[in-house]
Parts: sequence; structure tokens; C-alpha cells
Amino acid sequence: MHIAVAQVGPIARSDTRARTVARLCELLKDAASRGAKWVTFPELTLTTFFPRWSIEDPREVRSFFETEMPGKETRPLFDLARELGVGFYLGYAELDGERQFNTSILVDGGGSIIGKYRKIHIPGDAQSQDGYPIQHLEKKYFQVGDLGFPVFDAGETRIGMCICNDRRWPETYRVMSLQAVDLVMVGYNTPTGYGRLGEPRHLPLLHNHLSLQAAAYQNTCWVAAAAKAGVEEGIHMIGGSCIVAPTGEIAVQALSEDDEVINYVCDMSLADGYRGNIFNYERHRRPEHYRAIVDRVGASRSPL
Amino acid sequence: MHIAVAQVGPIARSDTRARTVARLCELLKDAASRGAKWVTFPELTLTTFFPRWSIEDPREVRSFFETEMPGKETRPLFDLARELGVGFYLGYAELDGERQFNTSILVDGGGSIIGKYRKIHIPGDAQSQDGYPIQHLEKKYFQVGDLGFPVFDAGETRIGMCICNDRRWPETYRVMSLQAVDLVMVGYNTPTGYGRLGEPRHLPLLHNHLSLQAAAYQNTCWVAAAAKAGVEEGIHMIGGSCIVAPTGEIAVQALSEDDEVINYVCDMSLADGYRGNIFNYERHRRPEHYRAIVDRVGASRSPL
Repeated sequence: MHIAVAQVGPIARSDTRARTVARLCELLKDAASRGAKWVTFPELTLTTFFPRWSIEDPREVRSFFETEMPGKETRPLFDLARELGVGFYLGYAELDGERQFNTSILVDGGGSIIGKYRKIHIPGDAQSQDGYPIQHLEKKYFQVGDLGFPVFDAGETRIGMCICNDRRWPETYRVMSLQAVDLVMVGYNTPTGYGRLGEPRHLPLLHNHLSLQAAAYQNTCWVAAAAKAGVEEGIHMIGGSCIVAPTGEIAVQALSEDDEVINYVCDMSLADGYRGNIFNYERHRRPEHYRAIVDRVGASRSPL
Repeated sequence: MHIAVAQVGPIARSDTRARTVARLCELLKDAASRGAKWVTFPELTLTTFFPRWSIEDPREVRSFFETEMPGKETRPLFDLARELGVGFYLGYAELDGERQFNTSILVDGGGSIIGKYRKIHIPGDAQSQDGYPIQHLEKKYFQVGDLGFPVFDAGETRIGMCICNDRRWPETYRVMSLQAVDLVMVGYNTPTGYGRLGEPRHLPLLHNHLSLQAAAYQNTCWVAAAAKAGVEEGIHMIGGSCIVAPTGEIAVQALSEDDEVINYVCDMSLADGYRGNIFNYERHRRPEHYRAIVDRVGASRSPL
């Protein structure tokens, strides 16, 4: 299975959808020219990462959201996918009536939407926090996803999706892996200097790869991860887009922090050895000892 | 908190307990001389890794198990711990009536057992498999642990334990982390050429560190991991013993494949930033979407 990841460089607050969609079309063409059949785009691919600001004008907020998919401005990407026979994962802000979600869709090589996911692990705050130069207001703009972690059959390959912060939570992949997922696609926007953690600046990239590699290995699946990267509206975001094998190894990774396609011909049978042996869930998992994972939300010192 | 890991080189099938315990005492003294207050020893530290053989003589099988702890031969280690004021994690084969477990205990600096864990993720087979030079018969010798994943208070630090294959399963650490664990100790015996997977020989060490690093990061705890390493009875086992910080970084690691102490002064507050923010479970976890983790044992293509 030949897959690609399309890393996307910075998108300005003032960029139009038409301009951004044209960039995505170029990336899709690049991926298709290499022979890839599936492309992963980032989270919130159609706009700048607006949750870094507390925007009070409802019309401006609405301008970052899609009310239909494809809409007039995104249709060229769907048309091109059909023309090239290439499927894709696309992250965008979804307005569904009054509800707002951080969403991704899976579009097949015929240009049809075959799957939708709404981000469950919404990080950050619902209101601006004093004293920090960068806000992280995803809880202001997005509700918690209500679709679970669904998986979708694309030919013989079962594809799952998650979005950005979801990739740090082992539960995300485990729920998909228990549905026999073969490939997880994930888009992300990750600033280097998320001030509240006060952590050294090399760590966000380490954490990105650590989470993706452990996920692929422990859940016997491929992972295709696409960053929105580079300095966007003054904020530096990590790149590090990659395709990770079920061995936990990064098979290929982006080296730039701008628009860049990477691709890899994935041997989907690479998971079989692990699934039949060390990670044969049926033989080795012991859910009777995992109850705390669903019985508790937060960590607690009280006895189980 | 100053902790150490005591990696242990090969132990021969013919080695006596007395000889092995004397080696462990040397390692404990080495750790104490550096100022460490806790030491992690490997899995099944008191004998060779006997599950690589199908042993039919019940007396020989029994010879690998402890019926009391401390027993006559292990008491010197407990006495030394009390003398030095150093606590330790020790893995051993436990015979409890007719039941056999792959067990670890936590002994405090007063020489008292303050915690016990019995391995839950028992890998391998219950009978010899044809056609493989190395057997892996843990399911023949050990029952599944019946104590869950308990945690134990050692002063202000909450310590959890797991054993070898447990470290590859994200559920292991999550259950402890939901009980506010600060430090997870783990011992392991991991052969390089576990033939049935047919994987390249560099992968077992990668998988070891990947699992430990992701665990520490995603569960905001320190991890202290001790290998039994080197060529034991003709089988090469990985070293790579290490102490991992809640940043996911390896703070210190063993470079040999023999008896070796590593130590690190751990800043236990390093987890606080993550616990209060990106990994604030109470604010961000969504167990309503994790049900499959306890509702399913094996992976299945049927709908949730």
C-alpha cells in the first residue's frame, strides 16, 4: 500500500480558502506523481491555527469553520482526488448547526467521503489565561467529539483517524486497534514553545515521535502523521511529519518545516508477526485488570 | 529521590542461589555507595531464565521457585538492605501452595516487604513449539497474576511495579497512573533473537526503550528498568537498563551487558507540569469512548 503524508507550511490568518486549497492540490498532485494512493493532510488544514487567539467577533469565528464538505471552495480538492484516483485525510473546523468540532474526514479515490472523526481529546482552555503570550483555546471553540474512534474499510485496509492531541493518549489507538485497524492517520499543529509547560524546546518533537512510534508498535499498525509546520503568525510549530511502521520505526520523515510530501510503500503484512505472537490480544490481554481505565477519569490516590 | 538500577549479567543454570545473592549484594553496595536509596533488580533475578526450556522433572522446576521470601538463601540481601538503608525491587519465581507466579516484591530500606506484584501479561506458550531453537514457556510455568496493578507508598513517593512483557502494554502503566504512581519499577529478560517474530535484531532494544519512554511520558512518571543481560546459556539477551524521566527522556542507561549499576537523582516534581496541563486526566480523559478496552479482549472486525 503506497501512502503519502503532505506536511503543510504556515497558513496566514489572512489567507483565503482558495489559496490554501490550491496549495493542497499541488501537494496531492505531487503525492500522486510518486504513485501514492492515500494522502494524510494536517489538522485544521484549511486555515491558520486560530485557537491561539480569543476571537470575540462571531462572524470571524464562523469564517474559520466549514458548514458543508465539500463546499464551494474545497470542491477542487475532491475533484482532483477523483481525477487522480487518490484518497485523503483532511482536518478542518466543522460547524454542524450550532455545534463546533475539530474534525477529520476520509475521502476515497473516487472523491467520496467514507469516514468522519471528531476530535475527542480537546486540549487547552475554554477562556484566555492571563500571563501567557500564546493561548490555547480549543476548549473554547470545540466540543468533545461524539463519534468515538471509528474505523473504515478501504479495500482490504482498515483505516482509523485521530487528531493532534489524541495521538498522545494510548487509549486512542487501543480502541482502534481492538477494531483491527491497519493504518491510523493523524494531523497535528504543535507549537514548540507552549509556555505553560516551561519545557525545553527539543521536547515537543521528541514527544510527537515517541507517541506515534509507541502507538504503531504497541497497536500493530502503520501510522501516517502530518504536521502543519513552521512559523505561523509568529508561532513556531514543529514539523516531523512521518510514516511509522508496526515495528515502531520511522520509515520516512519530512525534513523541512514547509509544504513537503513524503511517501512510502508500506508492507501491510509487517504487522502479522506481532499480531500472531507477542501482541496476540486474545491470548495475552487481561481486561479484568484494566477496569480503572474506564472507571476513573482523573488520577486519584484513593484505593481502586 | 536518588534511585539506581542494577543490571545483572548472565546467570548459569548451575549457579547456586548463594552465588547469585552474593552478586546482588555487591550491586546493592555499589548503589548505596553512590547514595541511591532504591534499587531495581531484574525479573527472575535469582536464577537463569528457565522458561526457555521445557523441564519435565518437577523437582528441577521447583528448584527455580521460592517458597518463602526472604528465605534462608535470600536473607543476606534483606539484611544488607536494612544495614545500608536501601530499598529494592526484586523479581523471582514464586511458589504459593500449588500456584506458580512470576513475581516482584518491593522491600523498603528497613528490609521489610511493603509490596508484591504478580505478572499479568504472561507471554509465550504453555507447551513447546516445534521447529524453534528457543522456547518461551512462561505460560507453562506461571499463572496470570491475581493482584492487579497495585501501587505502594514509600514516603511521599508512590511506587508501582510491572514485569518484562507487561512493559509493552499501555494498560499496565495507565492503571497505575490512575492511582497517581510516581515511579514504576520493571525488570526484564529479553532475548535478541526471539525466532518466531523473525524480526531484525536491532528491534528488541528499540522496543524496550520505546515502551519505557512512552510509558513515562504518557503517564507522567519515572520508570526504572533493569535487564538481565548478555549471553545466558547460549542465548543473547538485551541490556539497555535505564531510568526514564516523565519527559520521556532516558536520563541514564547501562552500556554493558553485564552486572552494572546506574543511578540518577530524580527530580520528582518534573511530572507536575504535565499533570497540571497536557496530561491533566480529570480535564481531558474521556472514558466514555474507551469502553472497548475493557469490553473486548481480542481485536475484532465486528462493530463495537
